[in-house]
Amino acid sequence: MSETPEDRLAALGVELPELPSALANYLPILRAGEMLYLSGQLPRRADGSFVYVGKLGGGVSLDDGVLAARMCAVNIISLLKATVGELSRVERVVKLGVFVASVPEFVEQPVVANGASDLVGEVFGERGAHARTAVGVVSLPGDACVEIDATVLVKP
Amino acid sequence: MSETPEDRLAALGVELPELPSALANYLPILRAGEMLYLSGQLPRRADGSFVYVGKLGGGVSLDDGVLAARMCAVNIISLLKATVGELSRVERVVKLGVFVASVPEFVEQPVVANGASDLVGEVFGERGAHARTAVGVVSLPGDACVEIDATVLVKP
Amino acid sequence: MSETPEDRLAALGVELPELPSALANYLPILRAGEMLYLSGQLPRRADGSFVYVGKLGGGVSLDDGVLAARMCAVNIISLLKATVGELSRVERVVKLGVFVASVPEFVEQPVVANGASDLVGEVFGERGAHARTAVGVVSLPGDACVEIDATVLVKP
Repeated sequence: MSETPEDRLAALGVELPELPSALANYLPILRAGEMLYLSGQLPRRADGSFVYVGKLGGGVSLDDGVLAARMCAVNIISLLKATVGELSRVERVVKLGVFVASVPEFVEQPVVANGASDLVGEVFGERGAHARTAVGVVSLPGDACVEIDATVLVKP
Repeated sequence: MSETPEDRLAALGVELPELPSALANYLPILRAGEMLYLSGQLPRRADGSFVYVGKLGGGVSLDDGVLAARMCAVNIISLLKATVGELSRVERVVKLGVFVASVPEFVEQPVVANGASDLVGEVFGERGAHARTAVGVVSLPGDACVEIDATVLVKP
Repeated sequence: MSETPEDRLAALGVELPELPSALANYLPILRAGEMLYLSGQLPRRADGSFVYVGKLGGGVSLDDGVLAARMCAVNIISLLKATVGELSRVERVVKLGVFVASVPEFVEQPVVANGASDLVGEVFGERGAHARTAVGVVSLPGDACVEIDATVLVKP
């Protein structure tokens, strides 16, 4: 298949945003050997503002949580693109860590996390099939409803 | 010592279950180079149902939390066995990430996590001595009381 | 620049404590290949007691949260020093995982995490620029207000 991840992004109508600037004194993405380590990404607009603030089971609906997770994944892909140039240089999305701001009664974190996993799978195909950990956290930076970090293997 | 991890599992009376199916569109275990990355495992029965639902400090007793963590470790070992064949091919259990569903007042996450760490140590011996992070989370998928992920090095 | 990380620690007036003993049956630090994996570190004194207990947004002030995160980073550096001898053998601090015990309304986890990130940057310079994930958790071992784990690359 000659279709690239960039082609699939375009077919999905996903536009990669300007990279969100880091909220503090750390790096959004870092390479060590052939592994890329991405800092936790939030559902932020290019202007730095958050969308979908609040908690799942509280002010944020399940549908909006899924969209927020997808937006985190878009930011992850955007960081990867800026780092490796062509997304076909991604050998494997290894792991996503999905932190869902939740009220104690909310237990559908996997549904929220699928918003990110689905997009990663659609864009990277088999190379996007990843390990994942999804948990409910009590609060997130800036009252974001989801935060997702990633570990990604690149081609030598 | 010629005793294998499988021998030690048998001596402990631990039977490896059918692999739990993934709750969503991700992989339960993935290899990148010589490292295995395991998705967060829950205390689920082979039929997919959860045991020990609820929170530590809430409806789940400390003893049941320890048993739940041990059950997560059994699922981890089961995934390893299915992936590497002989468990003696595990070079080192590198890290466990232990997420304990907790009420705000519960602060004995290390006791719960020991349910997993003890079993891993008993089964893998020195190769089972691992780094660990244990935290209290507000809620987990399916109202599980513990979720544990793992990073494991295999022999070349 | 011939100044070593040890020089910078001294200039900052930071004294590395005795290593905190593990709270349970796991290792505080472990090497796999050229990567060091550090267990979650807590703001503990050398005698094992905790400082800054409680939650951000609850009994712990933002300033004390920052100091607690810095104390976690001191423990991380202490473990690194004990493992690699000269801190100049650290090739790169790859990632910090920062877990802040928070009430649901507290959303300034990045400010707290900077207590650790700032010290790591001051001590290791460019080799200290790291990826980071900061989240709010409902409770931590021993009622600690911050827990931080780390992944660190060493020179071959």
